[in-house]
Amino acid sequence: MGKQSYTIVEDGGVTTPRGFKAGGLHCGLKKTERHDLGVIVCEVPASAAAVYTTNLFQAAPLLVTREALANGGALRAVVVNSGNANACTGAQGEADARTMQANAAEALGVSKDQVAVASTGVIGELLKMDRVNAGIEKLPGRLRSDEQGSDDFCQAILTTDLVKKTSCVTLTVGGKQVTIAGAAKGSGMIHPNMATMLGFVTTDAKIGSPLLQEVLREVTNVSFNMITVDGDTSTNDMLVAMASGLADNSELTRGHPDFAAFVDGLRHVCTELAKAIARDGEGATKLIETTVVGADDDEAAQAIAKTIIGSSLVKSAVYGADANWGRIIAAVGRAGVPVNVDTVDIRLGDIVVLEQSRPVVFDEEIALEYLKGDTVGIHVDLNMGSGKATAWGCDLTYDYVRINAAYRT
Amino acid sequence: MGKQSYTIVEDGGVTTPRGFKAGGLHCGLKKTERHDLGVIVCEVPASAAAVYTTNLFQAAPLLVTREALANGGALRAVVVNSGNANACTGAQGEADARTMQANAAEALGVSKDQVAVASTGVIGELLKMDRVNAGIEKLPGRLRSDEQGSDDFCQAILTTDLVKKTSCVTLTVGGKQVTIAGAAKGSGMIHPNMATMLGFVTTDAKIGSPLLQEVLREVTNVSFNMITVDGDTSTNDMLVAMASGLADNSELTRGHPDFAAFVDGLRHVCTELAKAIARDGEGATKLIETTVVGADDDEAAQAIAKTIIGSSLVKSAVYGADANWGRIIAAVGRAGVPVNVDTVDIRLGDIVVLEQSRPVVFDEEIALEYLKGDTVGIHVDLNMGSGKATAWGCDLTYDYVRINAAYRT
Repeated sequence: MGKQSYTIVEDGGVTTPRGFKAGGLHCGLKKTERHDLGVIVCEVPASAAAVYTTNLFQAAPLLVTREALANGGALRAVVVNSGNANACTGAQGEADARTMQANAAEALGVSKDQVAVASTGVIGELLKMDRVNAGIEKLPGRLRSDEQGSDDFCQAILTTDLVKKTSCVTLTVGGKQVTIAGAAKGSGMIHPNMATMLGFVTTDAKIGSPLLQEVLREVTNVSFNMITVDGDTSTNDMLVAMASGLADNSELTRGHPDFAAFVDGLRHVCTELAKAIARDGEGATKLIETTVVGADDDEAAQAIAKTIIGSSLVKSAVYGADANWGRIIAAVGRAGVPVNVDTVDIRLGDIVVLEQSRPVVFDEEIALEYLKGDTVGIHVDLNMGSGKATAWGCDLTYDYVRINAAYRT
Repeated sequence: MGKQSYTIVEDGGVTTPRGFKAGGLHCGLKKTERHDLGVIVCEVPASAAAVYTTNLFQAAPLLVTREALANGGALRAVVVNSGNANACTGAQGEADARTMQANAAEALGVSKDQVAVASTGVIGELLKMDRVNAGIEKLPGRLRSDEQGSDDFCQAILTTDLVKKTSCVTLTVGGKQVTIAGAAKGSGMIHPNMATMLGFVTTDAKIGSPLLQEVLREVTNVSFNMITVDGDTSTNDMLVAMASGLADNSELTRGHPDFAAFVDGLRHVCTELAKAIARDGEGATKLIETTVVGADDDEAAQAIAKTIIGSSLVKSAVYGADANWGRIIAAVGRAGVPVNVDTVDIRLGDIVVLEQSRPVVFDEEIALEYLKGDTVGIHVDLNMGSGKATAWGCDLTYDYVRINAAYRT
């Protein structure tokens, strides 16, 4: 990636880019007194883009958000609830998502065609719309453009996530300072639910909606799409981006001299959020980062990196701080892409464990110390071509089983 | 499948079909005094067939067995060790597998081109050939044609499997009694290893090697290939079938009036072994049987059944006796095949939980009781076509994590 073209903003959040306010409150969908309704608002119509879950069963909010984005590609707001996914809820669920959209639009004084909706939580139960509606009425009074607004929003989208997930960078586009920020939630459980990923990106860059859509897709493929907690794809996964344009930069195009810098910055934000989701996976004690190089092409490298990071055996071994390269090479061999079986190198951090597909004697004590750390790197070099990829995941622990084996009642 | 065309032989094993002896002993590859070397011998050259792991990293014994089978399709013996997989062992590993083959042939007085070799256990370590060779010399003295011979063999192929796995049926082919039997091992751990499946089928049916190969492949696709313990595919998976022909039936062809009965019997043996492997999966407390009907075709049904049975969230929920249909429908939706999202029915045993993709109110107490049983059925009807499939797996438990997180040292 060469030299870094952006600066990390330590305390930045979705309200840091110019034009955005955000807020959150407790409306009563969660049993405890935690935030469960949040909103991001842009003071101008923002160029918008979104990517959605590939699961065939898509929750009602996704249908409503798709329609909003199809209608000109501009958004003024995104309203989100946690505690109920509004999934598998039929015609009533769709009507409820539309009501959320319309009521948020009215409360915020914007067109309902420019309001996106997202939900996460229990599947198969109808939203308690009286609570949602009462909460939406109060949302305008909670909007803030400072760190607290971003914070309240981040809290409102969590389910059993342990920590808030934000990232923010600034960079220069055509001589103007541009800020990109994001918030995300990851794998939480609210019975009966599965891991849901929601992501929200705000920026003040001036960029058209079609190009933002292309860039968001490209960046998603190397960030959010490269994480695995347990291989399950939710009915509610969604990533929404809004660009206010208030940085007043010369509009970004693929030919813009600072286009690559913008993409780098967006990739940083999305990658940090993705890694935060992986590290905060259910029951996780460690972040696992798998890098595959020397593949025939990037796609082959991605397939292998994701197979390794998705292997229950590899994940269990990392939990146990076990330098178990046999499981890693077995994952390489079943990824479904061609591999030269005689030229594979594997490192755990800096510890070489396999060279040209042959075991290397290594110091077990040093390996144990390394694997006990909170981040474990698995590096595979296929020594074939120049394809490379990185994927992120977490270890498989007793707590994952405990969390997911719990009775819903 | 219509009426059952075979009779189950309760205490039958690989030595029950005419012409077979088997045995096992401890040669010193396992640390404890358990059998770790076994052999099945046929008194005549048996028509033979085999299927192998799809993992690109294939252990040395697989290469040697492939060569033996390519040389006329007849086998007199298969020699197996546990405790060491002879995988990722390079040229020396290949030489060692050939030595096992040659020494077993000499000890048994058969051609080495008619001896198959299989291994399971630690990856990346060379076999202790002095122990293997000494054991092979003693093998002829341990051969028995009774139940004890089958038993000794079954013990010799186990790693951390908890129970021996055998199945046996008889049926009539052209007026003659034909017996089909099998032995298998499943997901065991010997550090650092992954789940390995080895299967061995013996029969006294008269059937040519090419047809046996076709039938074995077809039956494998609906039995061994429909089980999942953790989605990891080993470097050593192998299924070998040997047909002595000593039942003296009119040779089986696809047009033979009892061909379907033979396939049914073979399917029963392979399915029973496959289910036994799933039930005995690492840490498993339950067998999960997933049936999908009403799919566009059998392949679509297979894809969905395997996605459900492979879902860590579904497996954890079954461990926790949680009637979590949300995770099941989410797995249906990400299986990669077309599904009508409005017409899905789901039952847990006889308990209807989803009808036409809408939740059904059910008695949670009754569901809990059902899910606490040692076998859990998940039935999905897509209400689209006539495609159907069944897959087997096990729950995901604390013990799976414990077993697989254990330090290798």
